[in-house]
Amino acid sequence: MPTLAQPGKTTIGWMGTGVMGNSMCGHLMAAGYKAVVHTRTKAKAEALLQKGAAWADTPKELASQCDVVFGIVGFPSDVEEVFLGAHGALAGSKPGTILVDMTTSKPSLAVQIHDRAKEKGVYSLDAPVTGGDIGARNAALSIMVGGEGEVLEAVRPLFSAMGKIIVHHGPAGAGQNAKMVNQILIAGNMMGVCEALTYAFRAGLDVEKVLQSVSSGAAGSFSLTSLGPRVLKGDFEPGFYVEHFIKDMGIALEESRRMGLFMPGLALAQQLYLAVQAQGMGKKGTQALVLALQQMAHSR
Amino acid sequence: MPTLAQPGKTTIGWMGTGVMGNSMCGHLMAAGYKAVVHTRTKAKAEALLQKGAAWADTPKELASQCDVVFGIVGFPSDVEEVFLGAHGALAGSKPGTILVDMTTSKPSLAVQIHDRAKEKGVYSLDAPVTGGDIGARNAALSIMVGGEGEVLEAVRPLFSAMGKIIVHHGPAGAGQNAKMVNQILIAGNMMGVCEALTYAFRAGLDVEKVLQSVSSGAAGSFSLTSLGPRVLKGDFEPGFYVEHFIKDMGIALEESRRMGLFMPGLALAQQLYLAVQAQGMGKKGTQALVLALQQMAHSR
Repeated sequence: MPTLAQPGKTTIGWMGTGVMGNSMCGHLMAAGYKAVVHTRTKAKAEALLQKGAAWADTPKELASQCDVVFGIVGFPSDVEEVFLGAHGALAGSKPGTILVDMTTSKPSLAVQIHDRAKEKGVYSLDAPVTGGDIGARNAALSIMVGGEGEVLEAVRPLFSAMGKIIVHHGPAGAGQNAKMVNQILIAGNMMGVCEALTYAFRAGLDVEKVLQSVSSGAAGSFSLTSLGPRVLKGDFEPGFYVEHFIKDMGIALEESRRMGLFMPGLALAQQLYLAVQAQGMGKKGTQALVLALQQMAHSR
Repeated sequence: MPTLAQPGKTTIGWMGTGVMGNSMCGHLMAAGYKAVVHTRTKAKAEALLQKGAAWADTPKELASQCDVVFGIVGFPSDVEEVFLGAHGALAGSKPGTILVDMTTSKPSLAVQIHDRAKEKGVYSLDAPVTGGDIGARNAALSIMVGGEGEVLEAVRPLFSAMGKIIVHHGPAGAGQNAKMVNQILIAGNMMGVCEALTYAFRAGLDVEKVLQSVSSGAAGSFSLTSLGPRVLKGDFEPGFYVEHFIKDMGIALEESRRMGLFMPGLALAQQLYLAVQAQGMGKKGTQALVLALQQMAHSR
């Protein structure tokens, strides 16, 4: 039976201190949990270290000092390295340690981590999130959890310090699958948003007025409301990176293919975002698709 | 200068008494306007006739008795016939009559009606709507208006009896272009929604729980919130007909091509909905795309 997390008693480990990880780990420390951190570039952990987190040189060393180990890193290859590598968290875990991967990653990798952990008496959850940098900052994330229910209950106090919507979707990998659903929704919607804005510009409409007409009706969406105004201001800075989105769509396509699914919209969206990346905008926000579409339009 | 519409004084004409037209004309009558109606199948006007509307055998005859003539019919060819045909509304209009087409139709046709009307001293607006049957019933439509501003002001009291958001988008055709933006948004989003639901089902997730995780975040949209639960219940009845959506996407694609725009998502969405129609589901609601995607998936 996994041990219930408690402030002052439980030590948490945090791997990956990007925009998301920084805020999320910060919330756990503010809630009274001791923290040990590790990240590829130590400078990126500086803010957390100054708040009193301890430093570990490797995920393995980190895990040996912790009860619950979180990771939110970049690509599935990074997940594999920090959890399953020779110097990874599992190698340093004692029986009863709980591993929680919050990266958006492969469902099959989540199952693999879970099974390898289980052989050592270690618990594991996949728990990717949605809500972006703002959700992370405001502890308002939606957390999609896969793994055993009793393990989720043991770390629920930790999740509650980071997110508002915490849903158990099933066994290992189910959290990642729920996140894939989220990304497939965004893929279709972003094509609609960026093509529609392109049409509006080129038809000579006042785009602000168009947003007024369409935002609260059947065509309304979070992406339209949050990204439409940014595009209007010419702001293509990342809320969500093009290159991370390409990665996520790749995972969803791979899983879809494995399941024999027909996903033409998702496949097209990934191709379009590859074109955005090819135009040098991989580090821009997903709204940069508008720029690529305009590049590909007949100029007048 | 067009005459301001006033209850008790202004007589309105209404062509097309489907689900939308029936509610919309009913609101105008409830607001105190005398009404004359015409529709292809007289039985469909029965409810309005019982409320006291007069009947006209042709759009021409109808227009000869009215100050403002509204139309909300099916396809651009119907719009052309009821407004510009030999027995159409323009043929019966006196100078100063105002024609208002609320059908989703071609921007170029709106310009044509406007120009032909102008030659006769008749005013014209294009004013398609969004909000569906429920918006029509609750007088909560969003009305997208193209044409002269002073003509819009003259009929604003009438629009206010039918809708909540009334925006002037520019000269003749601009209302239709704004509506095209709305439909392009829906096209992309529906691919996302239907592919995502298909993934969720086939990955073995509890779709209701998935909706809980994703609906209020970055993947959230009106379509997801309103159609997701219908799909879950196996309800494929039309909120919005597949065959009307195909028509709208066709107009948007034609206009896009005219403008030299690259619209791959929209083009794919139309093809997919043609497949839905080919499977005999043209009279189903747009959420029926889920069924078509599952047909095209590898069965297990």
